[in-house]
This record gives sequence, C-alpha cells and structure tokens, in this order.
Amino acid sequence: MPQPYTSPDAKERAKRVELILFDVDGVLTDGQILIIPGSNGAVHEYKTFNVQDGVGLTFARRVGLRLGILTGRTSESVSVRAKELGMEIIEQGSLNKLDTYQKIREQVNLADAQIAFMGDDLQDLPCLRRAGLAIGPANSQQDIRQYCHLITEHTGGHGAVRDALEFIIRAQGKWDQIMARYLA
Amino acid sequence: MPQPYTSPDAKERAKRVELILFDVDGVLTDGQILIIPGSNGAVHEYKTFNVQDGVGLTFARRVGLRLGILTGRTSESVSVRAKELGMEIIEQGSLNKLDTYQKIREQVNLADAQIAFMGDDLQDLPCLRRAGLAIGPANSQQDIRQYCHLITEHTGGHGAVRDALEFIIRAQGKWDQIMARYLA
Amino acid sequence: MPQPYTSPDAKERAKRVELILFDVDGVLTDGQILIIPGSNGAVHEYKTFNVQDGVGLTFARRVGLRLGILTGRTSESVSVRAKELGMEIIEQGSLNKLDTYQKIREQVNLADAQIAFMGDDLQDLPCLRRAGLAIGPANSQQDIRQYCHLITEHTGGHGAVRDALEFIIRAQGKWDQIMARYLA
Amino acid sequence: MPQPYTSPDAKERAKRVELILFDVDGVLTDGQILIIPGSNGAVHEYKTFNVQDGVGLTFARRVGLRLGILTGRTSESVSVRAKELGMEIIEQGSLNKLDTYQKIREQVNLADAQIAFMGDDLQDLPCLRRAGLAIGPANSQQDIRQYCHLITEHTGGHGAVRDALEFIIRAQGKWDQIMARYLA
Repeated sequence: MPQPYTSPDAKERAKRVELILFDVDGVLTDGQILIIPGSNGAVHEYKTFNVQDGVGLTFARRVGLRLGILTGRTSESVSVRAKELGMEIIEQGSLNKLDTYQKIREQVNLADAQIAFMGDDLQDLPCLRRAGLAIGPANSQQDIRQYCHLITEHTGGHGAVRDALEFIIRAQGKWDQIMARYLA
Repeated sequence: MPQPYTSPDAKERAKRVELILFDVDGVLTDGQILIIPGSNGAVHEYKTFNVQDGVGLTFARRVGLRLGILTGRTSESVSVRAKELGMEIIEQGSLNKLDTYQKIREQVNLADAQIAFMGDDLQDLPCLRRAGLAIGPANSQQDIRQYCHLITEHTGGHGAVRDALEFIIRAQGKWDQIMARYLA
Repeated sequence: MPQPYTSPDAKERAKRVELILFDVDGVLTDGQILIIPGSNGAVHEYKTFNVQDGVGLTFARRVGLRLGILTGRTSESVSVRAKELGMEIIEQGSLNKLDTYQKIREQVNLADAQIAFMGDDLQDLPCLRRAGLAIGPANSQQDIRQYCHLITEHTGGHGAVRDALEFIIRAQGKWDQIMARYLA
Repeated sequence: MPQPYTSPDAKERAKRVELILFDVDGVLTDGQILIIPGSNGAVHEYKTFNVQDGVGLTFARRVGLRLGILTGRTSESVSVRAKELGMEIIEQGSLNKLDTYQKIREQVNLADAQIAFMGDDLQDLPCLRRAGLAIGPANSQQDIRQYCHLITEHTGGHGAVRDALEFIIRAQGKWDQIMARYLA
C-alpha cells in the first residue's frame, strides 16, 4: 500500500465527520516516552508534542469540529496539552478502547459515520474499524494499514495530526475560511 | 516549488535588512515542546535549541544586524535563550503577530524593507507578507511557501536559522569579515 | 550484508526461543542518554522508550515468552520501564555480560538454544555468539552484524524491539492469536 | 567534497595521534540544548550523549589514547559525562579555543602532530588548522570541511565520535586488540 494513502471514499467519509478522536502515543507524539522516577515511588512520564499539530487542532475547533483523546496510557503531559488545545474529551488509561469509544459516542450522541478515529497500533484497530473515517499516521503498524481510509504523509509527533485535520477541513470545504484570516 | 528555494530578488532584499525577527516553534526549534506539569498547577514548557543556530546569531550581531523574537507561545526556555544570544527584542504570547510586528517596527523606527521575518506557519503569514524579506524553514507549511523569498535547506531547530543568517550576511558582503577572525 | 537481514536458519532458531534478553541502550532506546546532575552530587540518567516496542513486549508475554534486560549501565528509568512491562529479569550494571548471561541461564534453567539475545555493540558479542538466536537492531555496529541471525528493519528506540518480537511470534505461529483479539 | 571524506594522508596522520580533543555541541551531542530555568535565576542546560560514542571512548583509553574536551559553553551534563568516560582534560567555557588548545598542549607536552581535534563549526577552525589530525562530524559547517582530514559518516551525537575513534585505532593497528576481548 503506497504511503501516503487515501481511499477512494475517504473524502466523502471526511465530509460527514463532526468529532475526531486521537490516540496519543505515536499519533500526537513520536511514540517516545521520557520516564523520570519522582520522590516517594512516583513515576512521571513526559512526552513532547508538535506545535504545528497544535495549530491544526485550533483550526479544527474554529470550523466547528469537536476533538477528543482516547489513550491506554496516563500522563500528566497529556492532560495539560489536551486542556490547552481545548479538547472536549480526554480519556486516558482506557483498558478497552472500543468500550471507551462507545461510551464517548453515546455521550456526544453521534453516529459512527460522524466520528473519525486516528491510531497507529493494533489496540486501535477495533475503533478504526468502527469509526466512519479511520486514519493512521505514516508510522502505523503494517497490520492496521488496510483498515485505514487515510494514511498521512508525516509521522506521529511530526505533523501527522496536522495532515489529518487539513484533509478533513479541506474535504468539508472550510479551508478557505481558515486561510482568509491570514490573507486579510 | 523546489526546496531550498531563493526568489530572484532575495539577495537584493537581504541587502537592505537591518532587523531580523524570528518565530520560535518550528524555526528556532524543531517544533517539539516538552510539557512538564509543576507544583501548584504550574505548567512548564521546555524546548531545545540548536547550537549552530546560536553561533549564527552571534555572527549576525557582530556584523551589526539587530535580532528579535516574535512568538505566540510563552516559555521560560525562550526568555533564557534569547537573553543569552543578546536578542534586542523578545515578544512572547503575541495574540496577533501583525499588531506586535507593527509595534516593534515603530519602536525600532525602521521601514518594512529593512526587516526580515522568519516563520513556518499560517499565523506568520501576515508578517511574512509585510516584511521586506520573508523566510521559511524547510519545514514550512505548504500554504506559506509561495510568500517566502527564501526557503532554507535545513529544518527548524536543525540549522534553518543559521542558513537564513548566512544568506543575509553573505548578501551584505560581510561573510569574509566573519571568516577572517577564524583564519587569522 | 543487506539490511534488514534474516539468516536462512533464523526462523527455525526463533521457533525454539522461550526467553528474550535485551541490551538497553541502542536497542530499547535510541542510544541517547540525558544526563542531569542532581543535588548532593547525585547523577540522574534518563532515557526515552518507544511505545510500539512496549506493545510488542506485552504481546510477547501474552503468548508465553519470557523477557529480560541485561545491560552494563544503570538507570532509574530502566527499572521503572522494565517493571511496567512485566519483565521477569532485570540485570543492570553488568560488568561482564557473558557472566551475567550464564547466571540468568542457570536461574531460568534453559538451554542456549531457547534464549534469544538482542544487542547492538561489541560488549554484546559474547552473548550474541552464545544465544540460540542473535538479534541486532538496524543501528548495530559493523563488527557484530556477521554474528546476528536477524538484523531488524528499524533502529533501536524506533521499533527495533517490536520488529524482533513480531519475527519470533510469527515464527512460532502465534501472530494470529495476537490479531484475533483486535479483529473480534 | 564527498561525505564521508578521508584525505590521502589521514591514515598517516592518525598513526601519530596520542591525544584527541573534542568540541562538545554538534560533536559529542547532536547540537541540541535543552534549557531549563531553575530557582533563583539559575539556568540549567542539559544535553544528551550517545552510548555508542561512549563505548568508543572507553576503547580509545584502553589502547592508550588520551582524551579531552574543549568547548566554549559550560554545562553540568558535560562535566558529569566527561568524568564518567575518564577524560583527562575538561576545558569548558573557553572564550578563545586556540589559546586553550595551546595551554593544553604545553600541559601534556605533546607536538601538534600528536594531537587530533574534532569540531563542527567556525570557532573550531583555528584548532583544526593547528592539530595534526583535523576531524569534522557529518554535520560540519561547509566552511570548515576543506580543513578536515576526516569527515565522519555519522553526525554529532549519532556516532560521529565513534567513527573518528575507530578510524584512529584502526590506523594505529590496534583494532584487533579491541576485538580480541569480545571474541575470546
């Protein structure tokens, strides 16, 4: 499968999306975790995020898209970053992502077709198969690629999320609205 | 547009430059931010800088160029680094970069033609379109490239700023003056 | 020797593996160490780990493979990460890796043919020559490559461990068992 | 100039080397500095080092080569790392590298021909032109390359120092002595 990849129906699928859920490690980050033991046995796990991704998330909110995080790990860095970016949904420490996905879907009262999911590894597969638009970063594991409607040009933490968001915003015909602000 | 790219008039434009303003994330850094929650709800945001860029900034000051930072984010790392490099202008947390650009231009009493701006993303576009010399790092977003007179060979945080500074210093015929010190 | 590389008998060797021992730096990490001096002369050494490697280690345990770390350095990050991943053996600060390897082999009561060793540098060579399956990441030193049955596609800290684990699990015919959980 | 590059007389020059002096940023590191402001106005500057480089430095000491650091910056990480690696000379904060180089040469009582210097930028040029063997990492600035007898395959912080050390040890016919320990 070539990379980047766009399925024939990806654009049509993107048009219907109202909520985008992101796995964190390998998607919003490059998959690296910095582990620093703290005092009293505490363990701190830190991550780095990409500023161009952050700008894309701000654009997405500006055109009315809803955003959320759904990850199996737990990190203070993620809470802080998600809050800064105005994410509506923050689900960390999910042991079964599909269960959490379904809980979210009921909360937001949307159909699967209105939800995009972006993940890079096998545990994301049940959500990728359920969501209306399945997106993988360039570094996606081989076994999930065939289930993705979009494989981005960039890898996680290096612009994959920005790629995905621009694809959706352009498909919905709202990119000119973003550009207008900067071309005034 | 090929990369690196130099517009036909880039050298002429560079000759007139007296002040260079830099966006930070993705330009002076690789766009990665390390987020570490502190005590009492404080959030610390750390960045890594490139030493070869720093050497270039020292060279620029040595030949009389004035330097400044203009960024939308706020980070203690940036204040420290900018101070170390003797930057004259440090504007962080700018909500509207063009407004801040115009405030700076009045402070330094220069014309747009005497100012170079280096940025990588859409929010830099108004300043890139106003400044006499518009520079983007290799990692610049697609939509701003057509407005740049110079796209550097290296990416942000990996030598893009050094590339830009050497281009300007050479265009002004002052590179031999830099080399002389090390060839004595 | 081409890269990635698989020796003609690598698959047969992988079938017999019951325990996999990993060097840390350059294998489970990209070989970078962040050194931060602490108070009272203490020195803290931090490393970053890869989440996709971690998922692979979880898969390995799920199909009954036993896991261990054998490294010459000592770092709090490693203890924390190895514990999180449920590693059975954690040997840090080993001055002679072959001695430590033999101690481990006696503890677990396995033959060399049942042990895989993954390392990237010369000090790993005695263990690579002894273990039933010798694995090097893509960044392995030139002088150890000829002793490896498998050179992975990815470099250390960027998926090399995941590559190695998938190779073993597939060779043992247990990959479908992993996939089944996510295709249910 | 092709990269990696070896001058016709590089091997002969390497045979005479007894002391190797290294610049730090961009040579022993990838040129990235992590800046973290501390309490009471203190500024901490952290760097990451490469473990494979460290192994090479241990090999160099084992065959009798003397090692030192000569850098213009000052960082606690460097002191700790240099001490760990048993470096004989640690000169940080040098404002004029040639002056410091000459001071070191007198201390160790060696001729220029017996000293190798490895650096990546213009401020290293006076030392590179003076030392018997001038080495640059793959990321060396364009203007210093013509003065180097050896440009390594890898970049700083990603194996450049290991490349340089192996070249010298092999030129001196002592690599078999290193390998013997691991092939016993």
